[in-house]
Amino acid sequence: MLHTFQIFCPGCVQIGIPQAQRISQEFDPDRVAVIGLHTVFEHHSVMGRDALEVFVHEYRLRFPIGIDKYEGQPQGVPLTMREYQMQGTPTLILIDKNGYIRLHKFGHISDLTVGFSIGALLSEEADESAQLPQSAEPLTSNATCDTDGCSV
Amino acid sequence: MLHTFQIFCPGCVQIGIPQAQRISQEFDPDRVAVIGLHTVFEHHSVMGRDALEVFVHEYRLRFPIGIDKYEGQPQGVPLTMREYQMQGTPTLILIDKNGYIRLHKFGHISDLTVGFSIGALLSEEADESAQLPQSAEPLTSNATCDTDGCSV
Amino acid sequence: MLHTFQIFCPGCVQIGIPQAQRISQEFDPDRVAVIGLHTVFEHHSVMGRDALEVFVHEYRLRFPIGIDKYEGQPQGVPLTMREYQMQGTPTLILIDKNGYIRLHKFGHISDLTVGFSIGALLSEEADESAQLPQSAEPLTSNATCDTDGCSV
Amino acid sequence: MLHTFQIFCPGCVQIGIPQAQRISQEFDPDRVAVIGLHTVFEHHSVMGRDALEVFVHEYRLRFPIGIDKYEGQPQGVPLTMREYQMQGTPTLILIDKNGYIRLHKFGHISDLTVGFSIGALLSEEADESAQLPQSAEPLTSNATCDTDGCSV
Repeated sequence: MLHTFQIFCPGCVQIGIPQAQRISQEFDPDRVAVIGLHTVFEHHSVMGRDALEVFVHEYRLRFPIGIDKYEGQPQGVPLTMREYQMQGTPTLILIDKNGYIRLHKFGHISDLTVGFSIGALLSEEADESAQLPQSAEPLTSNATCDTDGCSV
Repeated sequence: MLHTFQIFCPGCVQIGIPQAQRISQEFDPDRVAVIGLHTVFEHHSVMGRDALEVFVHEYRLRFPIGIDKYEGQPQGVPLTMREYQMQGTPTLILIDKNGYIRLHKFGHISDLTVGFSIGALLSEEADESAQLPQSAEPLTSNATCDTDGCSV
Repeated sequence: MLHTFQIFCPGCVQIGIPQAQRISQEFDPDRVAVIGLHTVFEHHSVMGRDALEVFVHEYRLRFPIGIDKYEGQPQGVPLTMREYQMQGTPTLILIDKNGYIRLHKFGHISDLTVGFSIGALLSEEADESAQLPQSAEPLTSNATCDTDGCSV
Repeated sequence: MLHTFQIFCPGCVQIGIPQAQRISQEFDPDRVAVIGLHTVFEHHSVMGRDALEVFVHEYRLRFPIGIDKYEGQPQGVPLTMREYQMQGTPTLILIDKNGYIRLHKFGHISDLTVGFSIGALLSEEADESAQLPQSAEPLTSNATCDTDGCSV
């Protein structure tokens, strides 16, 4: 499970990250790997690595968290976020045993639906039946935040 | 999904029944059938059919709800509750395509875990691999309620 | 503080009664007396004294609770509810040191506003400055419930 | 009402700031002035004015917010925080009509108690009966955060 967020996105801090924490606590880490990704697409100057480290420390996050990259200096939408065609933060992505994206949701998603999707994916045999994600279109940056999250 | 409850059980009214409502709303009723069961094992005189009907009306429950039966007059633990060896209310039970009980939980269970279990069960082929429930032992009635629910 | 409710009113059970419990726990009972009143204006046959006693026991309510009366058999709107011109349940009423009604709210009221009102009333000297409630008009019974409560 | 916070303090972001927003929305601003104060006593380099401005924008805070000062460069406990002898963040302080501190609470405080205190203070006549705060002792910086907030 890939959970993408920004440290100043209210929908991430209040809803998305607590959900990621529940998932990392309830499921066996050998079967469900929870990975955070800091996908900063706005206010880059105040959401650097140092600020993220303070955030992770104070919120006591225990799962591994990556930092999305840019071509050159941090500005606009970062590379993974573009490649995966994310619409904003938070975004929850489920990747199956074969490495394919099977669930891709921007904004709120219920615990019932996430749990259901994880249960269905873990019941599958590892094979090549899953579809490759379509090639990514470049996203333009025009960010706004509401109670669901921050959109690009 | 079988959700058993009593109308004066705080853990049922505040946690269990709202969860059953979420399940009935989020999943396709052709794939996940939500059924309530009023398993009255205490205070029988004030939890009859007429009181249940008022409760269902006021809480606007939309899924079908059965009433557990007794040998003779309502007293002690009712028949299905005994047969299924339920410890109290609320109890959430998942029954698979072959009619076997696959999840049986008294008290609180998270949406993530219920969702996961439903996702895993729906991914199975219908077959005879599931185990029959063990024969039921008679339960003695010595009910107490706490924040999780009311136990027999 | 007078808190009126019905045991099958969702807005009472989920919001009003927990608020009454918080008030009874946070304030000195010598300064703020919390009194419940079961004002049954619908479904009288299943909300009698025996059902109320089970409810109070299971929800572990610790403040005193009265039962509103009728002229003759229980039917329609009970006497105190009529006299105080209550619109439905839950209703929260604050009565000052001189016995006058100073706050009268049907449905949801925030903890901030209830707390504020109690703080203001306790700062007053006991005197005759308060206004008498206006004489009550008979209410007609045409009850419906929503998330705020059940209205007459 | 003075609400002090830090933008990376979970107890502030999840509990204290939503409470300050409720207070600013429920009470007449001519009678209850809500003022925020960013009292950074740790991680100074990532909680500067630019980060605070992004936070205020994204969380849509509408009440005025000040930034506590330091002697010289930002480090250790800032000046107002020292002078008011605050133990950490969040801290809620009520100042009466005469300019005296009347409530001073570090960590969680219920809406009922805050509302009560505001109601009692607004019922007072403006006079000189209130006590001056005691002179502040220097605080040492040894910060830790838990669910209640971050303590110095």
